[in-house]
Amino acid sequence: MKTRITELLGIDTPIVCGGMMRVGTADLAAAASNAGALGVMTALTQPTLEGLEAEIARCQSLTDKPFAVNLTVGVVASEINYDDYVDVIVNSGVKIVETAGRSPEPFMERFKAAGIKVVHKCVAVRHALKAERIGVDVVSIDGFECAGHPGEQDVGGLVLFPAATQALKIPVLASGGIADGRGLAAALALGCEGINMGTRFLVTKEAPIHEGIKQKVVEMDENQTRLIFRSYRNTARVYRNSVADQVAEIEAAGGDFSEVHGLVSGANQEKAWSTGDIDAGMVTVGMCGGLINDIPSCKELVETIVSDAERIINERLASIAR
Amino acid sequence: MKTRITELLGIDTPIVCGGMMRVGTADLAAAASNAGALGVMTALTQPTLEGLEAEIARCQSLTDKPFAVNLTVGVVASEINYDDYVDVIVNSGVKIVETAGRSPEPFMERFKAAGIKVVHKCVAVRHALKAERIGVDVVSIDGFECAGHPGEQDVGGLVLFPAATQALKIPVLASGGIADGRGLAAALALGCEGINMGTRFLVTKEAPIHEGIKQKVVEMDENQTRLIFRSYRNTARVYRNSVADQVAEIEAAGGDFSEVHGLVSGANQEKAWSTGDIDAGMVTVGMCGGLINDIPSCKELVETIVSDAERIINERLASIAR
Repeated sequence: MKTRITELLGIDTPIVCGGMMRVGTADLAAAASNAGALGVMTALTQPTLEGLEAEIARCQSLTDKPFAVNLTVGVVASEINYDDYVDVIVNSGVKIVETAGRSPEPFMERFKAAGIKVVHKCVAVRHALKAERIGVDVVSIDGFECAGHPGEQDVGGLVLFPAATQALKIPVLASGGIADGRGLAAALALGCEGINMGTRFLVTKEAPIHEGIKQKVVEMDENQTRLIFRSYRNTARVYRNSVADQVAEIEAAGGDFSEVHGLVSGANQEKAWSTGDIDAGMVTVGMCGGLINDIPSCKELVETIVSDAERIINERLASIAR
Repeated sequence: MKTRITELLGIDTPIVCGGMMRVGTADLAAAASNAGALGVMTALTQPTLEGLEAEIARCQSLTDKPFAVNLTVGVVASEINYDDYVDVIVNSGVKIVETAGRSPEPFMERFKAAGIKVVHKCVAVRHALKAERIGVDVVSIDGFECAGHPGEQDVGGLVLFPAATQALKIPVLASGGIADGRGLAAALALGCEGINMGTRFLVTKEAPIHEGIKQKVVEMDENQTRLIFRSYRNTARVYRNSVADQVAEIEAAGGDFSEVHGLVSGANQEKAWSTGDIDAGMVTVGMCGGLINDIPSCKELVETIVSDAERIINERLASIAR
């Protein structure tokens, strides 16, 4: 399957593995890339610059295919020196970067000088247009259905994707709510040049999380997520577990972020991922978990999605539109 | 374009004009049906049973094509005797009914005895499965993006449509967030057999509302709607005007429905529709208004959507999937 995005990024299929905090290790990124998708390592999953350098080298040793490094610049203040992370990425020989959170404008000159292609993830057409103006190569637009941060405007992919593709000249990745070949075919129909999937790649053999969490996603339906942090203007879609319900209650009672901070700590999230206890912490998954019913390898997953999308296009749609 | 739904309902295209209160007159329904879509008259737009009888007869005089009558059974108590409306519909010779709101179970026997095909509109897979069990012929499933009442689960069409089509044996209409050929092609890719569009048919030459409102939809973007009535468990998506903002403020302050009742009265809604004053009352439109840029006739609209969808399928998608 060829699109403007497969050509631009040098990948075999128009499928990108979403950059996932704590999950986007070299192992998952390399598995996704070896399967013909674009694997994405998350820079901040590594606690130190040296760790990131080593993890990128490890990913390079695991695959000869292109992969990307995600750099999410938080919207809340932090002590992270992003410039140092950019230096490590630029010096590593990585050829594709996925940025998210704040605008990548401060780093664009260095990325471009290094010949790096930039995929910027954002949640609104206005931000996508700005990204295009500052020279990013691809926009990954995240609809309301996505896991993690959908923004505050709540526009579903069905409307957001065509709104973005008609506004932009650069190619667009559809992100959020997509887990299979039906979603890929729909995204292409809406004008996108590929798809970005997080939750779906989370439920693969290679994803470095406990089997118990994968099983919970297989069992969930489309109503098993909820939005939290809306009162902090930093809305997040997460699995509807006891932690999410407690956070929602605290927010409803007017509690500020300090009151939920402990509940949603990275340590608790890590505990859920690593022990499989779905109630140990906040678990970031999207509503397309309701469409996921198996735990394939990345290779099986990518092959199935592409062949399903091709069959939908060449048989079902062609017979309807003939 | 042929699908299970065009065959079942005897229509030329897999496009249904959404049943819209105050807008679904014989004029719009007949125009949509004459254009090859399924026009839908709304029963409760007529204040009396005699009025409905006359309006159905008028629609029959305006078109030889199939059209449907929508019967929305309110979730809030009312003085309407729905059985009487069912009698009028059954005796009118109408061959298709669209039900919405509560389950059509109490009326199914009479509809079936009269040879009427029933399309039931609902917002959750669970309700769709129940509708299938009680014998409805088609489910029209309304995603989060829709105008009016999306329910309380907030599942976008991108996830809800495939979840519904994989759960049901009867054919499914995709509703909410669709306004063009891209949306039709995407809905078909997601397993649906057609689309239901309200906002898009509202912005046609034949829709019996003031030109000023149509123009406002042409000008709006995808962020120009908001949800109200969530605190009353009767969430509605409406145009984000001063009335919607006032209602939202009252709800945020804990005000009960009696405090917003006057603002959202039918008389005020009617005033907005008829005078074109966008702030005169609650204006029910969906976020796909952001994808609407013209005011075609129903015939032009249906032709454009079908030819766009066919071109997307036969050219764009076929070249990607070859």
